[in-house]
Amino acid sequence: MTVYKAPLRDIRFILKELVHAEQLVDLPGYEEATPDQIDFVLEELAGVCQELLFPLNQSGDEEGCHYEDGVVTTPAGFKEAYAKYVEAGWPAMACDPEYDGMGLPKTVRLLAEEMLSSANLAFSVYPLLTTGAYTAIFKHGTDELKRAYLPRMVEGSWSGTMCLTEAHCGTDLGLVRTRAIPQDDGSYRVTGSKIFISSGEHDFTENIIHLVLARLPDAPSGTRGISLFLVPKFLVNEDGSLGERNGVVCGGIEKKMGVSGSSTCVLNFDDAVGHLVGEPNRGMSHMFTMMNAARLGVGMQGLGLAEVAYQNARAYAKERLQGRALREPRYPEREADPLIVHPDVRRMLLTMRANTEGARALAGWVGLNLDLAEHHPDPAVREEAGDLVDLLTPVVKSYFTDHGFLATNLAVQIHGGHGYIRETGVEQFVRDARIAQIWEGANGVQGLDLVGRKLGMHNGRLLRRFFHPVAAYLEAHQNDPLLGEFVAPLAKAFGRLQQATARIAQQGLRDPDEAAAVSSDYLRLFALVALGYMWVQMAEISLERLGIGSSGESRVNGGQATADAAAASVGDPKDVPFYQGKIACARFYFQKLLPETSSLFAVIMAGAAPVMALGDEGF
Amino acid sequence: MTVYKAPLRDIRFILKELVHAEQLVDLPGYEEATPDQIDFVLEELAGVCQELLFPLNQSGDEEGCHYEDGVVTTPAGFKEAYAKYVEAGWPAMACDPEYDGMGLPKTVRLLAEEMLSSANLAFSVYPLLTTGAYTAIFKHGTDELKRAYLPRMVEGSWSGTMCLTEAHCGTDLGLVRTRAIPQDDGSYRVTGSKIFISSGEHDFTENIIHLVLARLPDAPSGTRGISLFLVPKFLVNEDGSLGERNGVVCGGIEKKMGVSGSSTCVLNFDDAVGHLVGEPNRGMSHMFTMMNAARLGVGMQGLGLAEVAYQNARAYAKERLQGRALREPRYPEREADPLIVHPDVRRMLLTMRANTEGARALAGWVGLNLDLAEHHPDPAVREEAGDLVDLLTPVVKSYFTDHGFLATNLAVQIHGGHGYIRETGVEQFVRDARIAQIWEGANGVQGLDLVGRKLGMHNGRLLRRFFHPVAAYLEAHQNDPLLGEFVAPLAKAFGRLQQATARIAQQGLRDPDEAAAVSSDYLRLFALVALGYMWVQMAEISLERLGIGSSGESRVNGGQATADAAAASVGDPKDVPFYQGKIACARFYFQKLLPETSSLFAVIMAGAAPVMALGDEGF
Repeated sequence: MTVYKAPLRDIRFILKELVHAEQLVDLPGYEEATPDQIDFVLEELAGVCQELLFPLNQSGDEEGCHYEDGVVTTPAGFKEAYAKYVEAGWPAMACDPEYDGMGLPKTVRLLAEEMLSSANLAFSVYPLLTTGAYTAIFKHGTDELKRAYLPRMVEGSWSGTMCLTEAHCGTDLGLVRTRAIPQDDGSYRVTGSKIFISSGEHDFTENIIHLVLARLPDAPSGTRGISLFLVPKFLVNEDGSLGERNGVVCGGIEKKMGVSGSSTCVLNFDDAVGHLVGEPNRGMSHMFTMMNAARLGVGMQGLGLAEVAYQNARAYAKERLQGRALREPRYPEREADPLIVHPDVRRMLLTMRANTEGARALAGWVGLNLDLAEHHPDPAVREEAGDLVDLLTPVVKSYFTDHGFLATNLAVQIHGGHGYIRETGVEQFVRDARIAQIWEGANGVQGLDLVGRKLGMHNGRLLRRFFHPVAAYLEAHQNDPLLGEFVAPLAKAFGRLQQATARIAQQGLRDPDEAAAVSSDYLRLFALVALGYMWVQMAEISLERLGIGSSGESRVNGGQATADAAAASVGDPKDVPFYQGKIACARFYFQKLLPETSSLFAVIMAGAAPVMALGDEGF
Repeated sequence: MTVYKAPLRDIRFILKELVHAEQLVDLPGYEEATPDQIDFVLEELAGVCQELLFPLNQSGDEEGCHYEDGVVTTPAGFKEAYAKYVEAGWPAMACDPEYDGMGLPKTVRLLAEEMLSSANLAFSVYPLLTTGAYTAIFKHGTDELKRAYLPRMVEGSWSGTMCLTEAHCGTDLGLVRTRAIPQDDGSYRVTGSKIFISSGEHDFTENIIHLVLARLPDAPSGTRGISLFLVPKFLVNEDGSLGERNGVVCGGIEKKMGVSGSSTCVLNFDDAVGHLVGEPNRGMSHMFTMMNAARLGVGMQGLGLAEVAYQNARAYAKERLQGRALREPRYPEREADPLIVHPDVRRMLLTMRANTEGARALAGWVGLNLDLAEHHPDPAVREEAGDLVDLLTPVVKSYFTDHGFLATNLAVQIHGGHGYIRETGVEQFVRDARIAQIWEGANGVQGLDLVGRKLGMHNGRLLRRFFHPVAAYLEAHQNDPLLGEFVAPLAKAFGRLQQATARIAQQGLRDPDEAAAVSSDYLRLFALVALGYMWVQMAEISLERLGIGSSGESRVNGGQATADAAAASVGDPKDVPFYQGKIACARFYFQKLLPETSSLFAVIMAGAAPVMALGDEGF
């Protein structure tokens, strides 16, 4: 009963008009990433999402995964859908051409991850984990390991996992107890129990490649004594064929609040044959090299759920007749007006949309910088882009997933009682969205990453990568009469962010609790400013497309003609409403959402005392 | 695996020290409601909640209700628990002594509803609906109907329902299509289909008394053409024995996001024998006489879930070892520090607790006024108290349930990945809490009730019942050096509320969308000020109990002695920490939660334009 259509129009706007993804083709390695090629890939994937994966979303949730004697069966249709997904070559999307990967720019991949998450979050976890494991091996594995494992993972006939968490430790991986004993042949024997392992066991692929955090004998305690191991479900013979079953068994799966179609496994390793990936005792650091990508991906999960939630809420608000517009009936020919006439329903819809479109724009910008960081020939550009990505990663992870949860709940609220019924399908979005705030580092940990690591890194260099362009934009447009309604509130919010940053830097140096106690509020303030920076640019472009130039002069062509020209250039005839919608959303963002920065600022300036004063025993 | 202990200490504080519930005994009809008696009832009920109902909460959710051929079976243990509940006389709690009811003051009942909701929301819905139906009959039924139905409902051997919603209408009941045809014997025949009927069918009682909204032939369209009917599942003979089955059948139950142990039924009425309750075409108005009570009850559901969520989050935060305090290990003898040392975890816990305790205090104040409104001999006092209840009802319903959802989610967040696993039990609180934001008038409707009905009622008289005591308190304490840290921010927030109210009153008169577009934000601003008014008083009392008098002079007895005396008076030896905790929570509230009023104020002052500008087709 739910609906989903990939937001290709908005994605094109971001790629072509906001972040100018046409520049990607000039980067070494991305020669084939022409705008046409990117368009083609996104359209193909949109079809897969809409027609193959989305129809299995609700049934997958209802049925869930099954466990019996170490064997996990995915919900009806999942296995067949995965086979088609593999056949079409999608597992290669994220992979390097050296191993037959598609070598798709990250800019595109991030937006692709949004679509997959909208369509079927539970399904999308399987390939996502393979990508994570692929990346770990690609970056840190020996050539031998790469040759033996990567091609099969790229083609999707083998999948991957990341085995970090144990029953007594999730966030604090320094407590990991799983052990790896070196063998004479250079391999290791891994023993221990891991929990919450997504895709740890399933029926999609003939082999599963586990990447496992474990301790070598006599390794230092804490995070500096953890190494990374590759442990296949089936051993792999010299010739690449599958050998005997390795000593790893799925001990059960979890019943969860949501993402029921994604298997979440207990994995018991008992003298399992493993191979060291990277250097001994550097497992945590190796993990972190791919943590950014994973966290950005989880941010896109939040965004994807927000998008599909919005689409369903909008459809219901337009169709459900209930009450009358307050001034006068707006659709007098009907028994009642549709929900969308009600101001509070519009407030909810616009809250969803303004955040979603702002977040998508930010994802485009971060994606572009991911590509610049990895592919640009100039090391200075690479460094700058990499800094920005590092800085914004916790913001994307945390704010996007918080928004995903908020938006899915607003969709339920707009549906009223019908939203609470499982059959309607929207409450599933809430349950699915909830995990994104938790996995890949709970959102509170993202706040700590931002204030405790990223702010101070390289003497504040990362921060400047964001502050400088925002400050430059504000300065360049401070007297622009048309953009004033956006620039002025952004400048105010940015001022708050600067002051809050200064306070955290000063007080946090004296007492780390001062930074930590306001870290979540600070991250949120940061995110609101970042989205504001996206929205002012989207408003600027949209005004220009409508012939309302940001210079304040009216264009020769007039609004309609310019918009039509722009429409023609992106191949969509409905562009005037598109840009008008953008401007309306921008106004909503600046007048209704950005003001949250004022209370966040007050809360941050109140510091740690109200949080820390009460003794532990007082709780 | 979850824990729950009724918060009797805090309830006693509110009853005895904040709202002085000892005055209840002076009201006609409440002669037996002595403090000792109230204590006794609360303690007994706490036992029922902790030992009978709470142990069935998780299993009830897991199993859910079963439906087969019109018959609904509740989860294992529910029926037996209900029998014990009946045996102990609890259904009579809410009922009038004239019909063998306990005649318990509403002040106590509201706090009792919190406990029932904490323990087992799904179970609590059954008696709650009976209370609703009882109240409708008690207030509007003929003596004959009362005699025939009320005693069995009071004893709990018959239960009740409220049948309002139909498939095409929930909020807009003016669209109701169910018909009632008058018969020669004075009865009616009711035909139509109702959905989402809580407790519409179950195995608890031998009869179920449905109160049904339906239209008489030739009734005016809209809400003025709706009448209220009593339709029993089994007809009742003259002698009170059960006769034949009436024409009402349960057509199915809904699978829901939560409250799975509560049956949510489709009820098909086919020529069912019914009796008119109250006047023809006044059904909506009759419903509304009990809507306040029902909405307050739903507010308490939000509060109840917030409380049990807090207790579980606190237990986990104290027990789960993960990471180290940032300054230095706080529990060096352990492998890691418990979560509670982390500032962001404390922020979450205190957000839960400060809202929960503030809301509970507000519930106590509203409850007292409910009793004054119904029992005080002076009509002026009754009117004033009733006004305050009417005004605060949407605030309680909406803010408490929003907080319930927020708090249950914070509990999940503190549990990390373990919170997402069904077995842990905390994600159920989230799913259960979600419905409270929807039923009995979705929270957006509460905002409209506040700005569209309550603010303007009697020329603003209701509003003054709240504004005057707050203004008086602020004036009386404006120069109090000890309370300054609370009084100053409250005064600021109250000023915002006053200005926002003035804007809505002026602009809303000109254009109702101006009021409606900011109604949810306004309600939240209102709630934050109301809780602030509670917190400043709780802080004042607590400072006094600790010997830190609000006059600024230190007391003769010194802190400890006074606290001990206070402790002795309420029978709890641990009172110094209690009052210290209250002061710490008050500080957190004023410094970390109340500042939200600043952004809400900005959002309200931005008015309707950003919400209404985009045409319906632009969504």
